[in-house]
Amino acid sequence: MRAIQLSSEGLCLRRGAPRPEPGQGEALIRLLRAGVCSTDLELVKGYMGFEGVLGHEFVGSVEEAEDDSWVGRRVVGTINLGCRRCAVCLGSGPEHCPQRSVLGIYRRDGAFADYLTLPLANLLPVPDGVSDAQAVFTEPLAAALRLRQQLRISPTDRLAVVGPGRLGLLIAQVLALSGGNVTVLGRRAESLELAAGWGFDTGLAADAESDRYDLVVEATGNAAGLETSLRLVRPLGTLALKSTFAAAPAVDLTKIVVAEINVVGSRCGPFAPALRLLERRHVEVDALVAAEYELEEGLEAMAHAARPGVLKVLLRP
Amino acid sequence: MRAIQLSSEGLCLRRGAPRPEPGQGEALIRLLRAGVCSTDLELVKGYMGFEGVLGHEFVGSVEEAEDDSWVGRRVVGTINLGCRRCAVCLGSGPEHCPQRSVLGIYRRDGAFADYLTLPLANLLPVPDGVSDAQAVFTEPLAAALRLRQQLRISPTDRLAVVGPGRLGLLIAQVLALSGGNVTVLGRRAESLELAAGWGFDTGLAADAESDRYDLVVEATGNAAGLETSLRLVRPLGTLALKSTFAAAPAVDLTKIVVAEINVVGSRCGPFAPALRLLERRHVEVDALVAAEYELEEGLEAMAHAARPGVLKVLLRP
Repeated sequence: MRAIQLSSEGLCLRRGAPRPEPGQGEALIRLLRAGVCSTDLELVKGYMGFEGVLGHEFVGSVEEAEDDSWVGRRVVGTINLGCRRCAVCLGSGPEHCPQRSVLGIYRRDGAFADYLTLPLANLLPVPDGVSDAQAVFTEPLAAALRLRQQLRISPTDRLAVVGPGRLGLLIAQVLALSGGNVTVLGRRAESLELAAGWGFDTGLAADAESDRYDLVVEATGNAAGLETSLRLVRPLGTLALKSTFAAAPAVDLTKIVVAEINVVGSRCGPFAPALRLLERRHVEVDALVAAEYELEEGLEAMAHAARPGVLKVLLRP
Repeated sequence: MRAIQLSSEGLCLRRGAPRPEPGQGEALIRLLRAGVCSTDLELVKGYMGFEGVLGHEFVGSVEEAEDDSWVGRRVVGTINLGCRRCAVCLGSGPEHCPQRSVLGIYRRDGAFADYLTLPLANLLPVPDGVSDAQAVFTEPLAAALRLRQQLRISPTDRLAVVGPGRLGLLIAQVLALSGGNVTVLGRRAESLELAAGWGFDTGLAADAESDRYDLVVEATGNAAGLETSLRLVRPLGTLALKSTFAAAPAVDLTKIVVAEINVVGSRCGPFAPALRLLERRHVEVDALVAAEYELEEGLEAMAHAARPGVLKVLLRP
C-alpha cells in the first residue's frame, strides 16, 4: 500500500509499504479522507522525534474487525491509545497515559496511507449526513471543544482567538456557540476575510486593545502570537494555549504573575460532541477546505499546507 | 526624615527627605519595622522603572489620622491603592485597578523611611500577641495565602514548592495547613535545612521526579526554576507562579499544551487571614529573620538580602 512516511531520511511517499496487521481488538480501516494539520508539519520539522506514517485526522471504512457489525461502517477515530490499566486511563482517559501512543504522532503509524489500524474502542461511526470531507474535521473540532470542557465560558464574556488558521477558525466557531462575542485576530488582513464573512469581529493583532478580553485563545504556535495573546487578556482573565511551540519562545511572562492570568494548556477533545455539531450544521467546515490531493501527491499536499494562510488540505486514496 | 530612595542615580539613603503629608482619608504612620523582599531587589535592578522610596512590608504606629481612634495604633497596611470607582475596584478590589499605585513599587513612596502614609482603608490593626518582627510578615504571608483563594487544594494533593527562599518557606507552610504533603525543593542542600527541620520533605530540584505533583509552586523567579517546576507537575496538574521573572525566560512551554497544565499567576493576598494565622501561631516566621539593620544601614541591609540563601532582612528606625 501507499504511505506518507517520516524517517531519519526525511519525508517520502512509500509505495510498497506493508498493509498494517490489526492487533487484538483492533480494526483494519481503509482510508476515505485525511487532513493535514499543523502538528504534521511540526513533526516533519522534528517535533517529538516521530518516525513512521504521518496523519491523525481521517475518516475511513472498516474492512476487518472481530466484531462483524463494524465491517463496512464509516468511522472516525480518537488518536490516543493508552494502557487502559493505569490510574490515568481509568480516570481521565488515555490522553495523558504515560504509556500512550498517539496515531501518526508518537509511536504509532498514522492515517496518511491506504490502510490504518485502530482499536475498536477508539472508533465512532460517522452519521450519514456528514460527508467524508466534513468528517475529517472531527478531530480538530474535538480539540476546539476541549476548551469547553476545561473552561466555564459565559455568554457575556469577551472572547478572542489569535490566529485565524485551520484550528483558530474552528475554535472561533465553537466559542461563538456559547453566545459570546468572538473577535478573531490575525497578522494579515487577508487571513481575516473568512472570519469576517462569517460575521465575526476581526482585527489586526498589532492594533488590538490590551487587557480587553476575558478569554484569549492562542492558536498561532509562535512566540509573537503568544506575546500578543498575553497582552490582550484582561487581569484575572484566561489565556488558553491550543498550539504547541516548536521552539522555546523567549516571552516576558511577568504579566501572568502581576495580572494573575490563568493559563490553560489544551489538547485533544471529545469526538461525539464534535460529530453532533457537524451533523447539526452548527459549525461550518466546507469553507475551510483549501485543496484536495490524491495520496500519490501527498508530499505536494504537505508542501501546500505549509504555505502561509492555507487552511485545510485533504488527502484521498 | 531618613528614606531609602531609588532614583535614576541609583539607590541612596537620604537623610533630609521631607516627612510625607497624608492626603484626604490617609494616615501618617511612623515606621516600627520593615522587611526587604525580592521585589525590592528587582526594583533596584530596574523592574517597573520605579523611582521613589522603596519598601512595602512594614508595621508602624499611626501618628496622625482624621479619625482619632486610629492614633497610636500599631498597624500593617495593604499595598495597592486603587481609584475606588472603576468596575475592577468595586468588583475584585484595587489589586488590578488600571489606575492603581502600589506602595514602594509603583507610583507611590514606600515604607523604608521614618514615616509613610497610607489610606485608613488600607490599614489593619495588629493583634497584641503579634510582635513587630512577626507583623512584617503579614504582607508576604498574605501573598502566600492568595494561592488558597485561587486554587482548590485537597488534603490528599501532592504539593511541591520550588525555591526555599523567604517567600517559598511561607508558601510551604500555608500549603501544609491544607493537611497535604508538601515537598520543598531547592538547588543547594544548605538551603533546605530549615524546611527539613520543620518536618517538610525536601530534595534537590534536579533529582526530583518528573510529572509527580498535583500542584507545584514556582518561587524562585528564575528560568531554571520555571523549567524545573514545569517538569515536576503532573499532566492536568497546576503550576502556580509566585515570582516575577526579571528577564524573558526562554523556556520550552510545550508541556503546558501537551500535558494540559493549568498555570496560575498569583500576587497579593488577604491581610486579615494572614494576621489570624500569625496570632494563632500556625505559621512560623521568627526563624525566617536573617538579620535586622537600622534604617541608617539600609543599603547594607539590601546588599545582605541580595546574597544567595539569605532569608528575611528587617529594618528598624
